[in-house]
Amino acid sequence: MPPMPDEHPIDAHARETPATAPQAFDFRKHGHAMVDWIADYLEGIERFPVQPAVEPGWVRAQLPRSPPDAGEPWERIAADVDRVIVPAITHWQHPGFFGYFPANASGPSILGELLSAGLGVQGMLWSTSPACTELETHVMDWMCGMLGLPAHFMSTGPGGGVIQDTASSATLCAVVAARERATGFAGSGGGLQAADGTGTLVAYASADAHSSIEKDLRIAGIGAANLRLVPVRADRSMDPGAFASMVRDDVRAGRRPFLCVAAVGTTSTHAVDPVRALAETCAAHGIWLHVDAAHLGIAALCQEFRAIHDGVDLADSYCTNPHKWMLVNFDCDAFWVRDRATLVRALSVLPEYLRNAATEGGKVIDYRDWQVPLGRRFRALKLWFTIRHFGKRGLQDLVRRHVALADDLRARVAAEPSLESVCPTPWSLVCLRHRDGDAATQAIIDRVNASGTAFVSHTKVDGRLVLRVSIGAPAVAARHVDALWELIRGAR
Amino acid sequence: MPPMPDEHPIDAHARETPATAPQAFDFRKHGHAMVDWIADYLEGIERFPVQPAVEPGWVRAQLPRSPPDAGEPWERIAADVDRVIVPAITHWQHPGFFGYFPANASGPSILGELLSAGLGVQGMLWSTSPACTELETHVMDWMCGMLGLPAHFMSTGPGGGVIQDTASSATLCAVVAARERATGFAGSGGGLQAADGTGTLVAYASADAHSSIEKDLRIAGIGAANLRLVPVRADRSMDPGAFASMVRDDVRAGRRPFLCVAAVGTTSTHAVDPVRALAETCAAHGIWLHVDAAHLGIAALCQEFRAIHDGVDLADSYCTNPHKWMLVNFDCDAFWVRDRATLVRALSVLPEYLRNAATEGGKVIDYRDWQVPLGRRFRALKLWFTIRHFGKRGLQDLVRRHVALADDLRARVAAEPSLESVCPTPWSLVCLRHRDGDAATQAIIDRVNASGTAFVSHTKVDGRLVLRVSIGAPAVAARHVDALWELIRGAR
Repeated sequence: MPPMPDEHPIDAHARETPATAPQAFDFRKHGHAMVDWIADYLEGIERFPVQPAVEPGWVRAQLPRSPPDAGEPWERIAADVDRVIVPAITHWQHPGFFGYFPANASGPSILGELLSAGLGVQGMLWSTSPACTELETHVMDWMCGMLGLPAHFMSTGPGGGVIQDTASSATLCAVVAARERATGFAGSGGGLQAADGTGTLVAYASADAHSSIEKDLRIAGIGAANLRLVPVRADRSMDPGAFASMVRDDVRAGRRPFLCVAAVGTTSTHAVDPVRALAETCAAHGIWLHVDAAHLGIAALCQEFRAIHDGVDLADSYCTNPHKWMLVNFDCDAFWVRDRATLVRALSVLPEYLRNAATEGGKVIDYRDWQVPLGRRFRALKLWFTIRHFGKRGLQDLVRRHVALADDLRARVAAEPSLESVCPTPWSLVCLRHRDGDAATQAIIDRVNASGTAFVSHTKVDGRLVLRVSIGAPAVAARHVDALWELIRGAR
Repeated sequence: MPPMPDEHPIDAHARETPATAPQAFDFRKHGHAMVDWIADYLEGIERFPVQPAVEPGWVRAQLPRSPPDAGEPWERIAADVDRVIVPAITHWQHPGFFGYFPANASGPSILGELLSAGLGVQGMLWSTSPACTELETHVMDWMCGMLGLPAHFMSTGPGGGVIQDTASSATLCAVVAARERATGFAGSGGGLQAADGTGTLVAYASADAHSSIEKDLRIAGIGAANLRLVPVRADRSMDPGAFASMVRDDVRAGRRPFLCVAAVGTTSTHAVDPVRALAETCAAHGIWLHVDAAHLGIAALCQEFRAIHDGVDLADSYCTNPHKWMLVNFDCDAFWVRDRATLVRALSVLPEYLRNAATEGGKVIDYRDWQVPLGRRFRALKLWFTIRHFGKRGLQDLVRRHVALADDLRARVAAEPSLESVCPTPWSLVCLRHRDGDAATQAIIDRVNASGTAFVSHTKVDGRLVLRVSIGAPAVAARHVDALWELIRGAR
């Protein structure tokens, strides 16, 4: 029951209730039923095949061509979730889901999302709902400490953190801020088209970098042709010598290196680029160093894995995704910058209708200036609920449990003569292939994914097919990895 | 209760349950309590002052400096919502909220968001959760019909619709697609910096256009200097003659007009730009015409207001926000393009780890290529639930009721000698000022906002302060507008 201040008493009986007022929908009854449905779904999730067996068009064929003229009974709507939706989704929360990355969620986080929807506030400015902004700043400072990130990312210094929807969007903000810093804010002023004499802007990332980096550079008008894919070393991490030499070549040719995106955990194999060594070259040439730790960064919750953040103290920006491996449901990317002034200057446009005393007083953060969209919902709630419910230790336990399961699987792979580990790392991703080549590896993938009890995805390393086992579902336990192993071995 | 296919029976008792498994949190109990809390909150929302009376820093001062090591009891976490959050939010769902724009929500929509969080699926590709993509395509086709939008926006033709977070992001996609069409995809290839002989790219919007347009152009590297603010007519709509003449001047000077953003309902006053007349000039010069109907577009649910969409059949893209005025909680922007191939080509990058048979078969939509981020949650559920629960008629009734309340307020303003309407429109926004000038208008705004029972925002028109009354809260009724009127008049 929310607190009821008595400054504004109203007569509840005198109130009109339009059909669209909340009171006209039995939110309590249908809400309880939805909560129970979700509880049943999550408790019974292993009864579903991880991947659905539907053909393109099946879902649409179940739905009427036109929307209803009159409203439908809620029971009929809710029943269609079972009839049409559940048979046609991939069950990302299934403990047999080992594909792509974990998009793990938790009860507290789901209730945070529910509360955010129920409150329905807008956090575009501090003044449009102060708690939405301040709670976000606060939990981002918490996260900064929990992950051992540099103190200058804290809101108390010149930097700060903000929740973005995804690492793609966070990286786009880094690209734009870096571009503006390099051009003296000409890119957003006169535009990139105006020759400014500083040479063509060039960005760098490893050959294994995430596709979002190229996409962001295209969106920002830098162009895919100006992304240099730096060669990787045997462990698939960026070669810092090759990076330094490519930068020198570009400078010599009159181009302007402006951005390096280092991966802490590449998508394919979780290779960790040598951030500290890259930072040296970046510092020498005024290059913005962005660290993309979307999935793996969360491992730094544990002291024993904190070495992945070596050198991040020299970075200009950094992001990781609580929505991947920290039980916060999608979307929740945590993005920090060393110097918030550059980011805000790159993204701020203040029209009259958003002017307000708090903003002009200069004592508040307006997060609309830290992201692409104007509007923003109250995403800090789910992060706050999750951190408080599990505590730091509960979240560390999660990471350690997943890593232990991965260690166990890696040991089995090492002991199996027909398989080989690919670029082994000591965290939660296991990459392997069959020694007989791609066809044999594909056969394993097909067998696993046809089972219904497990799902894996793939990548290519050096042109060869690789099976990826990403361990991170909220309820994954030893028996699920055992079952996966039996499938990989072909024992069932 | 979700359906339980019996293909994969498991022994529930043999299952291990890690502390982070859903079963380890009493989701049922705490979920029911959260539903009840939200029901109480929404039913009792008028007891709160619309705007909180907190100073910057108050929220953070209530919170511990560090996150807890061990997990906290749920009851303590939930109690902090009452203690820290509720006193420091603006109550956007309050029927006395007349500020900015309505961000109206509804029970069915909140449950759609809850279900989306509970399922926790990723819709980046069709194959990562087919229902997430197909339901979205389906309800976007429904919406296209409900709003009387052109048939070529339907998924059955060369165009199609997609849900974005906000109109800012939708417009950014339009900017990038337009830029790529104009440069033969050079912007994302060689980059905007490479002189391509086509001249500087120039965009156009009315002098009253939303700030997101300048922001999007800055992000896309076009630059604020290349946004032409076209003069407006007496009703604050874009002057099509001035637009045509500015385009001619730019072409004569060797520049390349590439984008015109027409507002169907400007933020300040809901002026409607003359889309059909603008489209003529756009067609003559190959300019991408994007229509931003973020707030007002929803009025077209009603036949009598459909004239706002005159000319949209000639546009290249269009967006409106069900999260503003259609009871779908934020975020839910509906974005359509006439030619999806251009949009997808501008935004698609396909790495190995996302390759899959369905994508390569060419029979599916992968919405990641229709937006900036890669990841995406199941936002179609809340749109589907809302449309089905209220039906087309229920949503039309909502619009008509709000417009009737606005009509009533406009009539009162017209009859009050000390006040004047500013740029009156026949929909749900009422703009007014005191005839004595800005200080008197500011005094009204201050009086209303200090009351706690109502909240309005402001803008400037021709340099003069204007009070905006945006009518659109889910439970707003005549008595709330009566009370606001008493405050405006100074009668209480």
